[in-house]
Order: sequence, then C-alpha cells, then structure tokens
Amino acid sequence: MIILGIDPGYAIVGFGIIEFKNCRFRIINFGAITTPADMPFNKRLRVIFDEMSFLIEKYKPDAMAIEKLFFNTNAKTVIDVSQARGVIMLAAEKNGVPSFEYTPLQVKQSVVGYGRAEKKQVQEMTRRILGLEKVPKPDDTADALAMAICHAHTSGSCAVGTPKIKKGI
Amino acid sequence: MIILGIDPGYAIVGFGIIEFKNCRFRIINFGAITTPADMPFNKRLRVIFDEMSFLIEKYKPDAMAIEKLFFNTNAKTVIDVSQARGVIMLAAEKNGVPSFEYTPLQVKQSVVGYGRAEKKQVQEMTRRILGLEKVPKPDDTADALAMAICHAHTSGSCAVGTPKIKKGI
Repeated sequence: MIILGIDPGYAIVGFGIIEFKNCRFRIINFGAITTPADMPFNKRLRVIFDEMSFLIEKYKPDAMAIEKLFFNTNAKTVIDVSQARGVIMLAAEKNGVPSFEYTPLQVKQSVVGYGRAEKKQVQEMTRRILGLEKVPKPDDTADALAMAICHAHTSGSCAVGTPKIKKGI
Repeated sequence: MIILGIDPGYAIVGFGIIEFKNCRFRIINFGAITTPADMPFNKRLRVIFDEMSFLIEKYKPDAMAIEKLFFNTNAKTVIDVSQARGVIMLAAEKNGVPSFEYTPLQVKQSVVGYGRAEKKQVQEMTRRILGLEKVPKPDDTADALAMAICHAHTSGSCAVGTPKIKKGI
C-alpha cells in the first residue's frame, strides 16, 4: 500500500510518500510544496492543486492521510489553511484517492506510542521507523511522513502475513 | 460586465449572475448549488467544484465576487466553509476569472447605503435593484446577488456614459 501523508498549509504543504508492505516501510519521496507570500491567494491555491495532482498522478497512492484541523488550531491562519486543505482534498478526490484524517493526538499515539509525546520525539521516531539518516526538513515534511506512518498503523495492513486460524469445518 | 456573486458554503453555495452595463443591471441567472449532508465531504467539495466550473464555463463572468470570511463568522462551521471556499476560488482561478472579496459591511453599504442595514433590507433592496418580483430563495441566493451588486458598484463601471471634460486643446 502506498500512502501519501500531508501536513496542510498555504505557504508550505508538507508531503511524504511511503510504501507499507508486509509490515515494512519503504520511503518513496518526501518534500514540501511551497508558495510565495507575494503571490495572489487564488494562484497559491492553484499551485497547491496542480502540484498535488502531479504527485498523485506520479506516485499513484492508495490513500491520502491528512491532518484534521480544529477551530483552535491557529486562530489567525485557520481560514487560509482550510481553504488550502479544501483544494488538497479536491485533488485527491478528483484522482480517485480516498482521504483519511487524523488528529495530532492520533499521530503521536501511533508513531511514538503515547499522546503527550513532544514534536521532537515524533520526528525522531519517524526518522527511525523510516530508516532516514536525518530528520527531514522543513518540519512540515517530517509531520507529513508521521501522518503517513499513522495511517499505515491504523489501516491495519500489518495483519498481512500473520497466520490465520481456521475455525472448524 | 458579467459578475458572478457567491455566498460560500458547503451545504449551500448561493450564486447570482448579473450583467452591469451603462449603469443598468440585467439578471442572467441565480440559484444555489446544494450538497447532501450524508455525502462524504470530499465528494461534496467535488460537486461544488464541478458545478462552479459549469457555471463559469456557461456564463463566462468577467469577475467573481465572494464573501470574505472572518474567524468569528461561525465558529462551528468556519473550517468546512473555508474548505468549500477554497475549491470555489480554485474553480474561478482555473477558468481565468478574477476574484474579489467583500465583507458583509461593504455589501450593506453598497446595496442599502449604510452598514447597519438588516438582512431583510439588503434583500428587499436587491430585489428592487434587479427588478425581481420576489426576494429569491434561499437566503444564500439573495446574498449572492447582493454580493454581485456590491462588486458592480465598487468596480466603478458606472462611469461609462458620463460626459468627459476635455482639457486644453
């Protein structure tokens, strides 16, 4: 299963593409879509949509995992982040990729094992799980990879290969 | 000039398309794009994007006027309304239609003449300006038409036809 993890934003959209097969992770690509601050907002939305569509067409993920937003996420930017998130969701939908959303708490629990983990701990565990030499930069990219790991753990594909008990006849 | 007014939302997107030429208004079409509550949110975004693209391709507006959102607009729904607004803006941008945003205060001032006007007053003045028999329903549609009128007044196209004073020779 190929998973596209997304940390949504309008200035920086972190992305991480991983394969999760037989309980093993393989990293495919990661990075960030960035839009300049002096670009009109409509055009920034278009850049995000077009780049997202490009990534989806190129890597053909089976699922997109994206951060769930809350009203208190960041008062000043929540409207613009939400607008960008809308076009990210649209890019997935138009390309037939199902979306799954996770809270920061779910990501922490899934990647580190407990919900009160600090950002650095999540990043370090993400690095280890994926066998990377360094924590990817910017933070948005590391967060996107953690989101993808969270979906891999949650979707339960790790059951593949475990012995199945047959019941009676 | 053909103007597409939009009252953004995810359950109901009000739209109003008017022509403003030589200081006169002509109504072209108005209505609402609706999405069912039991439809997955991604698909609702796609319906909104596709219907918006259809309207834009059909009526070829010169401008889109859309309500500016504020953090305190509606605490519970602001994230989802913003996500829908993102795909509405994207539909305009991808079809080469410039977007303009106005606050409810600007709309009231432009349509009724003062910023403290009540919703009913704005709707009644919208009805009169456009020569409609009844106030269009739902409210989202009437609001979208008021938004289009606001852009017509603001963009100053009414200067067309006024006598010009030539200076010097």
